[in-house]
Amino acid sequence: MIKLNENFNKLKKNYIFAEISRRTEEYKSQNPTAQIIKLGIGDVTLPLSDCVLNAMHEAVNEMGEAATFRGYGPYEGYEFLRSAISKNYLKYGVDIQADEIYVSDGAKSDTANILEIFQTDENILIPNPTYPVYVDSSIVAGRSICYINANKDNNFLPLPDYSVKPSIIYLCSPNNPTGAVYNRDELKKWVDYALRNQAIILFDAAYETFIEDSDLPHSIFEIEGSRHCAVEICSFSKGAGFTGVRCGYVTIPNNLKIGDKRVGEMWLRRQSIKFNGTSYITQKGAAAALSKEGIEQSLKNISYYKENASMLSETLKELDIWHIGGKNSPYIWLKCPNNINSWDFFDILLTRINIVGTPGSGFGTNGEGFFRLSSFGKREDVKKATERIKKLQYLI
Amino acid sequence: MIKLNENFNKLKKNYIFAEISRRTEEYKSQNPTAQIIKLGIGDVTLPLSDCVLNAMHEAVNEMGEAATFRGYGPYEGYEFLRSAISKNYLKYGVDIQADEIYVSDGAKSDTANILEIFQTDENILIPNPTYPVYVDSSIVAGRSICYINANKDNNFLPLPDYSVKPSIIYLCSPNNPTGAVYNRDELKKWVDYALRNQAIILFDAAYETFIEDSDLPHSIFEIEGSRHCAVEICSFSKGAGFTGVRCGYVTIPNNLKIGDKRVGEMWLRRQSIKFNGTSYITQKGAAAALSKEGIEQSLKNISYYKENASMLSETLKELDIWHIGGKNSPYIWLKCPNNINSWDFFDILLTRINIVGTPGSGFGTNGEGFFRLSSFGKREDVKKATERIKKLQYLI
Repeated sequence: MIKLNENFNKLKKNYIFAEISRRTEEYKSQNPTAQIIKLGIGDVTLPLSDCVLNAMHEAVNEMGEAATFRGYGPYEGYEFLRSAISKNYLKYGVDIQADEIYVSDGAKSDTANILEIFQTDENILIPNPTYPVYVDSSIVAGRSICYINANKDNNFLPLPDYSVKPSIIYLCSPNNPTGAVYNRDELKKWVDYALRNQAIILFDAAYETFIEDSDLPHSIFEIEGSRHCAVEICSFSKGAGFTGVRCGYVTIPNNLKIGDKRVGEMWLRRQSIKFNGTSYITQKGAAAALSKEGIEQSLKNISYYKENASMLSETLKELDIWHIGGKNSPYIWLKCPNNINSWDFFDILLTRINIVGTPGSGFGTNGEGFFRLSSFGKREDVKKATERIKKLQYLI
Repeated sequence: MIKLNENFNKLKKNYIFAEISRRTEEYKSQNPTAQIIKLGIGDVTLPLSDCVLNAMHEAVNEMGEAATFRGYGPYEGYEFLRSAISKNYLKYGVDIQADEIYVSDGAKSDTANILEIFQTDENILIPNPTYPVYVDSSIVAGRSICYINANKDNNFLPLPDYSVKPSIIYLCSPNNPTGAVYNRDELKKWVDYALRNQAIILFDAAYETFIEDSDLPHSIFEIEGSRHCAVEICSFSKGAGFTGVRCGYVTIPNNLKIGDKRVGEMWLRRQSIKFNGTSYITQKGAAAALSKEGIEQSLKNISYYKENASMLSETLKELDIWHIGGKNSPYIWLKCPNNINSWDFFDILLTRINIVGTPGSGFGTNGEGFFRLSSFGKREDVKKATERIKKLQYLI
């Protein structure tokens, strides 16, 4: 008799974004004229750049001619894209070869799927609060999680606790949801800790393009020793605006081994069984996003979002609301004023000033009392949002 | 200390297509002028149809304008595509609603990933020989497999054995690798068996567009009772030529439940954790492939491949080589002449007549002594191949 994977019962009942959308829809149905501004989910709003569009048009045309048609591609991605990514790493002084890169349909799939190559009884360390995918993909696979506290005291940048001995460590910097960014010294501490424990760091760098301070690391591979303990997961979603196009990649150094097995080889084997490569058209677009023109356009978009973040941050400062992020990150992480809890603050923003944000408690218990604002909105919306937020002081 | 998933050690060492490509490359390097014809891997060669290309160009354009740009899409796919798939089912007299369809990046991912929603101690029934993904994805998840024999005696269409009590049953019809197709009565026996055992059939219908005999079922949902025991996995790869574009879907009837849980809801939860939707551009192309014009073009391509199959089949008949498939399927499954084993026959074809096919033993022990030819090649190559195959009788 067939049974369902019981681990699904251990998931939190309401997935945060589903609950946000439920409450928002409910409010909208009762207040159909309300002009709601969404600063919730981390989805981009600016269109793709011209060079990406051109590359994708060209790829579509190639698919229409027998001589240039492409069927199944390599599981690990096309050489042209892997080379472009490899070259892009040089910007940060990092030497990553094309054959250390594994292209995928997005960083979310990768952060979840990569667990499959490790034993299921491994102890997984996850900061609290966190991007929910690390937790949920661990839970459904029946894996045990230990949390490390991120909080106001450590500026939401927890450091290793040597009394805990995990085998897998999820780190995300710039962080989702908090926007906090590790510096080199801090990341070095994590690398040392991982090496000491013979653990693997799964480093989620999906927001690296938002880093502007030149002394902050974009890649874990800027840190000495990391090639022996880290895997990096990155994405075209936020920089190049690929949330609807779907492209990401995993970087696994060739010398990263467990016993005598190369981790990269294991990952490729996993991908060859459960994945069939990323769309050729998508990969052509992604490669164009890493061209000179593509990067210039991405940076323009990113500075647009960061100007949004800065406007939100200025407003919060005026109101004396504690917050971090927004500078090297698209997210602002604020302490709900007057010690209001996260969902109550969500309801206040929604019903009083018609702004939708993300309750911090949805990212873990340490997020309770905090709130995430995203800067991916349109300028005019963000402008309006800042005006509305200023009214908050009279409302709560 | 981190450990790798030991189940990977239980996989067969050489993935069949990797070994094929190794031997082929070796031969080529020693015989650089050899004109090798590939009738091995099941990859299409005809370009995408105009209406698909137009839809994708249009979608790319939409992604370039702020007003029409699309970011994250629904995990389950866009309504426009789900509706088109739902409507397509009506051709077979099957009533599947749009909300019973879950769009993905391909049938391979789906057939492997869907196991994750079931308990890992479930017994999985897989025909031998089989598409390797069912076996390999079961093995890496530590699941137990029981095989059912497909062989010459049952025309490679095994029927249920009630002494075996599986919880999950993989069926593929038209079959990869054998090209055999179940009729309604035979499928009904599988549905009855699944209902009796409270098992789930995972029905791989990736090749359904190749069926031409009007009495053969395209969908498991043509069979009474199937809505209570079956999930169907289908693809745009072979019909519409999407092997490089990547789109598939899972159909889960809303009334398919395990206990009080809807299987469709569980699958959506899994997808929401480990997947982030299929490219908007791809989905627009897939919807166009299901338009009147798109289907006409697909059928034209399919009849091109089937004409190839028929030429190969005629040649084998002339040589009195036992084979099945090729009529309602793109694959021809032949018994190697003179009781030669599969890899020896591979080497003979490669080295004597420069044809690459797929050794049946790569699909399971019951494939030993058999061989798969694919009809997805170009006409002129298939023509040449038939001439070369005719020489076989003097060579072995």
